[in-house]
Amino acid sequence: MSKEDEVLREREAPLRDAYALAGVNIDAGNAAVARYRALAASRRHPLQLDQIGGFGGLFALPGDPSRALAASTDGVGTKLLVAAKLRRYDSVGADLVNHCVNDILVVNATPLFFLDYLAAGKLDPEVAGALVDGVGRACAAHGCALLGGETAEMPGVYQEEHFDLAGTIVGLVEVKSVPDPARVKPGDAIVGLPAVGLHTNGYSLARKVLPAERWREPFASDAGATYGDALLAEHPSYYTAVRAMQAVADVKVMSHITGGGLLENVPRTLPDNVKAVFEASRWSVPPLLEEIVRLGELSHEERYRTLNMGIGFTLVVSTGDALKAIAAEPSAKVVGWIEARADGDPHVVVHPARTA
Amino acid sequence: MSKEDEVLREREAPLRDAYALAGVNIDAGNAAVARYRALAASRRHPLQLDQIGGFGGLFALPGDPSRALAASTDGVGTKLLVAAKLRRYDSVGADLVNHCVNDILVVNATPLFFLDYLAAGKLDPEVAGALVDGVGRACAAHGCALLGGETAEMPGVYQEEHFDLAGTIVGLVEVKSVPDPARVKPGDAIVGLPAVGLHTNGYSLARKVLPAERWREPFASDAGATYGDALLAEHPSYYTAVRAMQAVADVKVMSHITGGGLLENVPRTLPDNVKAVFEASRWSVPPLLEEIVRLGELSHEERYRTLNMGIGFTLVVSTGDALKAIAAEPSAKVVGWIEARADGDPHVVVHPARTA
Repeated sequence: MSKEDEVLREREAPLRDAYALAGVNIDAGNAAVARYRALAASRRHPLQLDQIGGFGGLFALPGDPSRALAASTDGVGTKLLVAAKLRRYDSVGADLVNHCVNDILVVNATPLFFLDYLAAGKLDPEVAGALVDGVGRACAAHGCALLGGETAEMPGVYQEEHFDLAGTIVGLVEVKSVPDPARVKPGDAIVGLPAVGLHTNGYSLARKVLPAERWREPFASDAGATYGDALLAEHPSYYTAVRAMQAVADVKVMSHITGGGLLENVPRTLPDNVKAVFEASRWSVPPLLEEIVRLGELSHEERYRTLNMGIGFTLVVSTGDALKAIAAEPSAKVVGWIEARADGDPHVVVHPARTA
Repeated sequence: MSKEDEVLREREAPLRDAYALAGVNIDAGNAAVARYRALAASRRHPLQLDQIGGFGGLFALPGDPSRALAASTDGVGTKLLVAAKLRRYDSVGADLVNHCVNDILVVNATPLFFLDYLAAGKLDPEVAGALVDGVGRACAAHGCALLGGETAEMPGVYQEEHFDLAGTIVGLVEVKSVPDPARVKPGDAIVGLPAVGLHTNGYSLARKVLPAERWREPFASDAGATYGDALLAEHPSYYTAVRAMQAVADVKVMSHITGGGLLENVPRTLPDNVKAVFEASRWSVPPLLEEIVRLGELSHEERYRTLNMGIGFTLVVSTGDALKAIAAEPSAKVVGWIEARADGDPHVVVHPARTA
């Protein structure tokens, strides 16, 4: 993958997520991305470091080139519409922070501080308070400062009672500890950490196949007793699990499985001469995702390109380190391996390769 | 001003801006702020430094306490509705970046990098490209990297053809060069840098008194030949002007005049025992602001609390340094002075104190 492609991934993924079935215009997104690509390439700053998969940007600390700042901006996306409809505002702040924490964890960065952006057509103080409480709670869980924020009331921009919540995380990393995709070799194991639901991607699709009228219906899942509970299950942070595994195993690269699923996110931190081969029988799929696959009649390709399908974060380790890694984190499983890739081969294969 | 008050100012100002005349609910905003206040106070991170006026947050660099990171998140606000209506997307990116640059300039920080957040109901690639081009251009003008960004298409959250643009800046500052309000003394001079229009505040009010039907009407101003030109005049960056003045003068504190005007922004970096006294005859008011004052029949209090009234940035220097400072920057003027303040006195006085 070229440097420009890597720079773009962060911007590209959320556009792909809300895919054609849900009526989102992917071509428009790609055109915007192409323009951003040209801009980013023409204006690269001398202290910007090569991105590793584009999950977070890296900027060498002036005067101290052994360390770099890592930063990432994200929004909660249309999961907000589920929260607004069900009037449950306590979890989306944590969705946002945890998503950002995981993004810069891919480059091995430790969070320093977070800033949130909350905008609404009409600001409800109870709602705003609950949203910011959730942000603050998730920041505190990571020893990360909530350094600032902006709250804007913008009638005319937002639909009545709607709001948007986005944020930016800044972390720090030793440059020598930034993962190097060149170290990944055929025979390495892929360790997966479990997803609890959709996390923050696939909601345009989910809302299409599971309309709001059904969100209060009973639905048994780990996340609760209704479809709404399952839809609002909090995007987990993988920070503690990853640090526990890194303490005993040499983690070569990582990926955060967001919009684009395993098929698009895993290759972002792999060299071009290898492929990731997953064996789906090695992990379980959350009931909500199984239900969306069923209702949407998603093909094999669609399900693994749109949903996380039960894997929220992946780590590549040598075969010798795989058992040590999963012993350090009870929820972790070996979910696949790295194989050599010939020109024209796919970058990711998920067995069994069912057809829709 | 208490530490908690200072922490809050960043969040508070944009709520006050869109004030009652424009139908925005200030009470709701204040309730949200109160909740944020409690949260921020209860969860202060040990590396967070005291904020100076709350324009940007400060975070000590781990392992190097002589330096701090400064960060600020802002949105363009309802100026976007003017840009969208007139289909002119080239300037709002610079509005956003320059606003953020000025905010962290108040704590004397030099920009390192910027991340943007662009969300729309339906993404138009031409519009998105023009918006991000503007962001990139203003970043490049400051030697600031555009390190990343997020583009989200969220049908159902944003009104048709509407979008929001926000961003986060991160800069670096030597802790010993962070301005100290305690150094401000009665007799010091206030140097002002000129505003070119509304900048990014007061647009809810402006749209109320100057409806969209009139934006293509002729209106003579420095910013162009129509009301639309004047409304979209770019929020200037004061970075170069401030650095030029700092090279020859000891600048004690600074303020960025945003929502809240001179009345609310200048006291943010003053000690409680002084007041700022402005003499309005010393500078000129942009024609657009005069027009909004006239159409909105704004009282003296309202105009200086809602609009910048022609001053975009202020610097406090000793009387001896004032002439050196303005000699270094042709656009700068001495616009007022610092006086002793007794309990109960206002923090800011603008002479002549006309009544509406």
